[in-house]
Amino acid sequence: SVQNAQLNSTSSDPPTPTADHRTLSQTHELFITSPYSPGSPLLLPNGAYVFQKLQAFLRAQYPQFGFQEVITPTIYKKSLWEKSGHWDNYAEDMFSVQGRGATGQTENAEVGQNEEFGLKPMNCPGHCLLFRDEIKSYRDLPIRYADFSALHRNEVSGALTGLTRVRRFHQDDAHIFCRPDQILSEIENTLRFVGMVYDTFGLGPYKLLLSTRPTDQFIGTIEEWDRAEQQLTSALNNSGREWAINEGDGAFYGPKIDIILKDANGKEHQTATIQLDFQLPQRFDLYYQASPEELEAPTKTRDEGVLDPSNRRPVIVHRAIYGSLERFMALLIEHYAGKYPFWLSPRPAIILSLNQDPELLKHVAYLQSVLSGLQNTEASSPSSTAQQSEPSKPRPQPLSTIHLPIDVDTSARSLGKKIADAQKKKYNHIIVIGPSEVQSGGVRVELANQPNEEATQRVLSEVLGRELQSNDIK
Amino acid sequence: SVQNAQLNSTSSDPPTPTADHRTLSQTHELFITSPYSPGSPLLLPNGAYVFQKLQAFLRAQYPQFGFQEVITPTIYKKSLWEKSGHWDNYAEDMFSVQGRGATGQTENAEVGQNEEFGLKPMNCPGHCLLFRDEIKSYRDLPIRYADFSALHRNEVSGALTGLTRVRRFHQDDAHIFCRPDQILSEIENTLRFVGMVYDTFGLGPYKLLLSTRPTDQFIGTIEEWDRAEQQLTSALNNSGREWAINEGDGAFYGPKIDIILKDANGKEHQTATIQLDFQLPQRFDLYYQASPEELEAPTKTRDEGVLDPSNRRPVIVHRAIYGSLERFMALLIEHYAGKYPFWLSPRPAIILSLNQDPELLKHVAYLQSVLSGLQNTEASSPSSTAQQSEPSKPRPQPLSTIHLPIDVDTSARSLGKKIADAQKKKYNHIIVIGPSEVQSGGVRVELANQPNEEATQRVLSEVLGRELQSNDIK
Ligand SMILES: [Zn+2]
Ligand SMILES: [Zn+2]
Repeated sequence: SVQNAQLNSTSSDPPTPTADHRTLSQTHELFITSPYSPGSPLLLPNGAYVFQKLQAFLRAQYPQFGFQEVITPTIYKKSLWEKSGHWDNYAEDMFSVQGRGATGQTENAEVGQNEEFGLKPMNCPGHCLLFRDEIKSYRDLPIRYADFSALHRNEVSGALTGLTRVRRFHQDDAHIFCRPDQILSEIENTLRFVGMVYDTFGLGPYKLLLSTRPTDQFIGTIEEWDRAEQQLTSALNNSGREWAINEGDGAFYGPKIDIILKDANGKEHQTATIQLDFQLPQRFDLYYQASPEELEAPTKTRDEGVLDPSNRRPVIVHRAIYGSLERFMALLIEHYAGKYPFWLSPRPAIILSLNQDPELLKHVAYLQSVLSGLQNTEASSPSSTAQQSEPSKPRPQPLSTIHLPIDVDTSARSLGKKIADAQKKKYNHIIVIGPSEVQSGGVRVELANQPNEEATQRVLSEVLGRELQSNDIK
Repeated sequence: SVQNAQLNSTSSDPPTPTADHRTLSQTHELFITSPYSPGSPLLLPNGAYVFQKLQAFLRAQYPQFGFQEVITPTIYKKSLWEKSGHWDNYAEDMFSVQGRGATGQTENAEVGQNEEFGLKPMNCPGHCLLFRDEIKSYRDLPIRYADFSALHRNEVSGALTGLTRVRRFHQDDAHIFCRPDQILSEIENTLRFVGMVYDTFGLGPYKLLLSTRPTDQFIGTIEEWDRAEQQLTSALNNSGREWAINEGDGAFYGPKIDIILKDANGKEHQTATIQLDFQLPQRFDLYYQASPEELEAPTKTRDEGVLDPSNRRPVIVHRAIYGSLERFMALLIEHYAGKYPFWLSPRPAIILSLNQDPELLKHVAYLQSVLSGLQNTEASSPSSTAQQSEPSKPRPQPLSTIHLPIDVDTSARSLGKKIADAQKKKYNHIIVIGPSEVQSGGVRVELANQPNEEATQRVLSEVLGRELQSNDIK
C-alpha cells in the first residue's frame, strides 16, 4: 500500500554533504532564527513538516517497543530541582521562572505566587513523579515513559548555531523504570531500536561506547555496578555491532552507552545515548514491591534503613534514539544534502501547468488534491469535482491519512522558468501538465533530487490508481 | 477500512454527565497534579493518549483547510512582548524567565545573558516574526499558521482546578494572515471547520456570538470595521447556525465571534474563538504588496506615513477550534462520562484469559498483537509466531499505522474477578479467551461502555479478517 511504501530506507550510498545545514535549510525554507529568542529556532512550515515526520516515525515505533507517551510540565518549583540535584549541579544551564506578580508588579500577590520555578532542562524528574503516583509491583516493570517536551538549557549566546547549538530543543526522550534483572533485555531492545532507526535513514556506520564505573566516586555497591556492566556488555556483544570501552568514564550515578555516528565526511557525532541511573530512584524514593526471588536474595543492594525490606529500588534507563530532534534534523539535512526521501521531503512534488486554460487548471487542481491525499481517485474525477465538492459539509479525514504537501505553479510564466524555479527549490518531482495529460488523465513526471525512485513511482502509481507508463516519466 | 471506521461520530444522544472530570479521570487514570507545578497537569499514558488523538484528529484536518503547522519558541525577550503589547497589558498573567547566570550565580556571565525573557502566553507574536521573514505578495495570502505549543498564563494558585483552570496548556492555535477582502471566506471556512469538529464529537448545540466595534476606543477606521463586520455577519448568516450580536463588545483591536457550547447539563462553555486583529499587523509592521485592485482603491485604510503606498496591511485572524486542549479534554471527559468512542478511548479493549494454559496464553498474545495493530492477520498465525518473531530485526512500522492500546489480563485470578476489574476500569470491550476460542481462532466480546457498537464491530471484524459471528458477542 501507499503507507507501506513510505518507509523504504534510502540508498546505502548517501550523497556526500556539500554544505552546512544552515545553508541547505535556506533552499527548503526550513527555519529562521530571531534575536528575540536566541537559540530557539523558529520552524517554518517546511521545517515543522520534517520535524513532525521524524516525530511521527518514532511514535509509530513506540508500541512495538513498549513505550507509552506522557505529557509533563515545562516549569517546576525550585524544590523539585533541588530534590533531583539539578538546581545545584546544573545551575548555570538552567533558566529560572517567576510569576511577574512575584517581582512586586502585581498588587495583592498571594502566597506561593512568589516562589521561583525552573524551566526544565530534562524530563526525568517529572517522570519520577508519574512513576511514584501509584505503588508498583515487580510485575508492573518495566515501565517506559516517552516524552517529546521542549527542553531549555542556557547555552552562552556566543555558542549558538542554527539547529545544532540551541537553547531550546526537543528530545525523543524516554525513561525506562526496570528491575535490576531486566537491564539486559531493555538494553538489547534499545540497541535494536537504534539500529532500526538509523538503518531507516541510511545513517551510519556508528560505534558503541561503554563507559564504566569511575574509580573515585560512585553511588551504589560494586556488586550493583558489576551486575549492570555485565548486562550492558552482554547486550553489546549480542548487538553484533562494533563497540569499545571507556574504562572508568561512567557518571557517578551509573554506566552508559553512547552511540557515535560517523557522517559521510567522516565527522563523528554523539547522537543516541543510553544511561543507567542508580541515583534518581534514591532521590525520589522510588520503589516497587519485590518479587519472591528478590526477597530471597541477599539485600546488599538496597538503601539500608530507608527502604522497606519488602521493596526494591528500580533502575532508571535514560535513553534517546535521535537525541535532540533539532540536532538530528541538522544531521539529516547534511546527510541528504537536499535530496530527501519522498516520505520525509518537505517538497515531494510540484505540478506545473503548461498554460492557463481553465480545463487544464481544473486538472491541475484535481491532481494536487489526489496527490496530496485529500481525495481519492475513486471518489471523483476532474469532471465531477463541481458536484462533489459541497463546501458547506467538509468530511472529517481519518487520522491515518498521509497528506503530502504537493505544490502547484499555475502562474503565467513560461514553462522553462517554472521548471528552473522548481529545480532551484529542489522538489523531488516536477510534474508537468499540458493538454495531452488532461486528455489522458495522466501525469508527466520529471524525476529529480530523489534518492529512491522506485519507492516514489510506487507511491505515484498507487495514487493514480494505475501503473506509471514510460511517457509519464521524463 | 479500519481507518475510515475510526471517525464515525458518536450517537447524537450523549449520556448525561454524572460527575466532574476530575473524578471521571481517576477511573481511566488520565492525569495527576503535583505541588511541584501547580496548574500544570501531568498526563499519564492514558491521558496523553487521548490528548494525542485529539491533536492527531485536528492535524488530519489541517491540509483540507489550508493550515500549515509551525514550531515556535517558548521564551522570547522582554522587548518582543513590549512590541506586541503583552508586557504591559498582560503583565500579571505572564511569567518572566532569566538565565540563572543573570542572577549573579554564574561568574563571567556574558553580555545579553542578563536579559529577561517572557514565557509565552500566546503564539501570535512568534507567528508575526515568521510572516515577516519574507516579503509577501497579495497572491501569497491567506497564510495560515497553526501551532500546538505549550502556553503559560499565571493564574493565581487558588483558582487552579484539574484540566479546566490551569497555568500551562496547549491550544489548537492558528493565525490567518489575510487581505481585508478575504475575511468572509476565511470566517466561513473556520465556521465550517468548527461545525465538522463538534459534529464529530457529538457536541452541541452551540451558538455563535458576534462582538462588534466598541464606541469609545478602537484602532483602525470606521470603514475598516464596517467592512469587516459586514463580512462576519455574512459568514454567520451563511453558516445556518443560531447567532446573536453583542453590540460594542469587541476588543479595541477588532471584532470577534465566540462559540458558546451547551453541555448535557445545559451549562454553557466558551470554547472556540475567532478574533480579528487590526493591531498586531501595525505593531509588527506586517505588510504585503498590494494587488492592482487595491492600488486603485482609496487608501484610507493604510497607516499614513508609515506604510509604503504600494503595500497594505494584512488582517490577522486568531482562531482556535478546541480552544485549550486540556479544557476541551475535560469537557469531553464529562460529555462521554467514561464511554469514549472506540477511536478515542484510552481503554478500547482488554483480553482476559480463562486459564493459564500455554497454548491459550499464546493465542492471547497473538490477539493482542493483532488488535493493537502490531501485526496483521495475514503475516502470521499464533502457531507460526515462533519463527516469525526474529527479535534482532524489528521492522519499521509505517506512519499511518493505527495502534490501539489493547490490554491483557492473564493473571491466575478467577474469570469473574477479572471481568469485574475490567468493568470497573470501563474498557469499551472485554474479550474473553477460553479453549474454544483458541480452537476456532476467534474471540468472545463483551460489549460495554461503548456508545457506537456498530463502528467497533466493524473494526474488530476487519482486524480478525472475517465477519463477527453471533457467538463472538455476548
Ligand atoms: Zn533523563
Ligand atoms: Zn493569537
